[in-house]
Amino acid sequence: MDRPPTAVVMLNLGGPKRLDEVRPFLLELFVDREIIQLPFQSVLGPFIAKRRTASVQRHYAEIGGGSPILHWTDLQGRGMCERLDALCPESAPHKHYVAFRYGEPSSETALRQMSADGVVRAVAFTQYPQFSCATTGSSLNELWRAARRLGLQEAFDWSVIDRWPTHELFIEAMTSTVERGLEQFAEADRDDVIVLFSAHSLPMSVVNRGDAYPLEVGAGVHEVMKRLGRPYEHLLAYQSEVGPVPWLGPSTESVIRQLGVKKRRRVLVVPIAFTSDHIETLHELDIEYGELAREAGITEYRRAPAFNDLPLFQDALAAVVAEHLRSGAACSDQYGLRCPGCVNPQCRNVLRPVAPYRRTNMSPRPDDGQYEKAWGAKT
Amino acid sequence: MDRPPTAVVMLNLGGPKRLDEVRPFLLELFVDREIIQLPFQSVLGPFIAKRRTASVQRHYAEIGGGSPILHWTDLQGRGMCERLDALCPESAPHKHYVAFRYGEPSSETALRQMSADGVVRAVAFTQYPQFSCATTGSSLNELWRAARRLGLQEAFDWSVIDRWPTHELFIEAMTSTVERGLEQFAEADRDDVIVLFSAHSLPMSVVNRGDAYPLEVGAGVHEVMKRLGRPYEHLLAYQSEVGPVPWLGPSTESVIRQLGVKKRRRVLVVPIAFTSDHIETLHELDIEYGELAREAGITEYRRAPAFNDLPLFQDALAAVVAEHLRSGAACSDQYGLRCPGCVNPQCRNVLRPVAPYRRTNMSPRPDDGQYEKAWGAKT
Repeated sequence: MDRPPTAVVMLNLGGPKRLDEVRPFLLELFVDREIIQLPFQSVLGPFIAKRRTASVQRHYAEIGGGSPILHWTDLQGRGMCERLDALCPESAPHKHYVAFRYGEPSSETALRQMSADGVVRAVAFTQYPQFSCATTGSSLNELWRAARRLGLQEAFDWSVIDRWPTHELFIEAMTSTVERGLEQFAEADRDDVIVLFSAHSLPMSVVNRGDAYPLEVGAGVHEVMKRLGRPYEHLLAYQSEVGPVPWLGPSTESVIRQLGVKKRRRVLVVPIAFTSDHIETLHELDIEYGELAREAGITEYRRAPAFNDLPLFQDALAAVVAEHLRSGAACSDQYGLRCPGCVNPQCRNVLRPVAPYRRTNMSPRPDDGQYEKAWGAKT
Repeated sequence: MDRPPTAVVMLNLGGPKRLDEVRPFLLELFVDREIIQLPFQSVLGPFIAKRRTASVQRHYAEIGGGSPILHWTDLQGRGMCERLDALCPESAPHKHYVAFRYGEPSSETALRQMSADGVVRAVAFTQYPQFSCATTGSSLNELWRAARRLGLQEAFDWSVIDRWPTHELFIEAMTSTVERGLEQFAEADRDDVIVLFSAHSLPMSVVNRGDAYPLEVGAGVHEVMKRLGRPYEHLLAYQSEVGPVPWLGPSTESVIRQLGVKKRRRVLVVPIAFTSDHIETLHELDIEYGELAREAGITEYRRAPAFNDLPLFQDALAAVVAEHLRSGAACSDQYGLRCPGCVNPQCRNVLRPVAPYRRTNMSPRPDDGQYEKAWGAKT
């Protein structure tokens, strides 16, 4: 086929593939004010990154020497595009590109490859199902900045899939992982299992400026419990808080410890906001919290599997993209709504959007107009 | 009919009916450690109550001299029981009793009247659709304490409706109030309206010990937006924070101010966690935030009506109770699950439950056993 591919750019956090990539990865992470805001960040960020390097390297060593996030994202992307070619022949062929926020392949790497492939139409598809400015927002802002750095700001016609927290197939896939998790308990014991949904936490400063994440995570948990159809006791907690600022709780770590104190013996932890295994599931949930659970007297601590190579999840990815392509929309209606407390004029833009969209809640800051001009709709 | 009535005890916060009831009402509120935990509460609670009395009295004066919460709860209770008599002839007649956590009619008043009426079967029905230990939890604990104080701990067979955040008819009724709210804007302007859901806030200490409230409020917002079927921009914020502790945000007040700064002109505020008008809707949302909105440049600030005398809401109340009665359950499956961080041994009990229920997450504290003995299941 001579047609250039429709690009589906899979945005995710990324992770070091080898141990020597840990320090630069952490450095990128801790100086990014879009993902975390620290006091004296230009000093404190590198300090925290440096201090944490050795222990994080140990963690990656314990899960095989690197993050499997690229392996899984690539595999999911191939499955998604095969399905898309069948679902949407009008935009075939479809090709996935991985753009990690930190580490390789970066947004620049993805954009260069798209340019080499002659791409015209591109979909930026966040792999964070629930929207947060700290994750999807930061990835999109970086994608547009990278395009400008490379002189590719006019190269592609963009649309954005910025959230899919309750898409029917995503909920179906998530429910199936919960069911597979429950199968790790004896049938007779399942009514005694606490289903502990765990999502990556957010600094309260992000929550308090009006980020959609807690609402969207909660909606997903609600839909999964509804679909599960059996009234398991369940809780939602937040993991992976780091640094000297207050984070949204309850913390998964405390909850596990407290459930032990309260003599609960069976816990199934469900990573509701991750789409594949990486350090937060393989090390934090499995190794660290697994040990914590044992110490706390939780004799059966299990984790629902991540999507990884689950075909149903690839069905979900393909369905989300197919519906988005058919809608003709540039983004979701919520994407244009900036967080009420946001002061970052870069937020909520779409580079050369395929359709007009409303970017509302305009900042009155003078630099806002410049971004609007540079990044406004084609028409 | 000679059969004694099935009692439906409507639990709610309450409010001063007259201005001279404001100070004792605030005093009861601020010394209750189940609803708010302050440092040095026995001193700071009365201090805050005293300091706030004059301003709160002014607020009640501005909305007619007292809280309408008893008027509306009574009206809703009558409508609910009429419907219940038709829906559930097997448990008819049904009679509603109002039990406010602060002020009259108190739990003791309700229990005395139930005793005088010869009640045997009683349902404790929270009027907070979303469960929180600070609201429903505190009301239930007080109800059981009051029964013991009156020597009525063996008088009634109890079950509990402890939450109904996404009951289909509740969502239908809430959606209808949002639609009525939207009708206050010109049809052509409605796509520009931000739907700002506002719920009473919670101290972060309550959130962090694992309270279900944020999750259940979020699930309700999600279901209302789904039912609305038009992708209005929407936000969830939290109102009415008070005292020197951190509360769950974003705060409704800040969000309104910030939307003004961002040049939004049309906001519909939706009280998602209240079932009738009272000081938080009539004064805080309408008068205080209304003024704030005007100052911030929001030219069309409107509020979705509270349920008050909406017949659909009485249908919802009756349906919730009818389904509960038919289930034969003592409470929801979630009710027995104590918050992981809870240290209050009184929590999650049902006095003389009509059916066994699992109160799990047992505290290992020695006094817990006593409560279990005193308050355990009949069988």
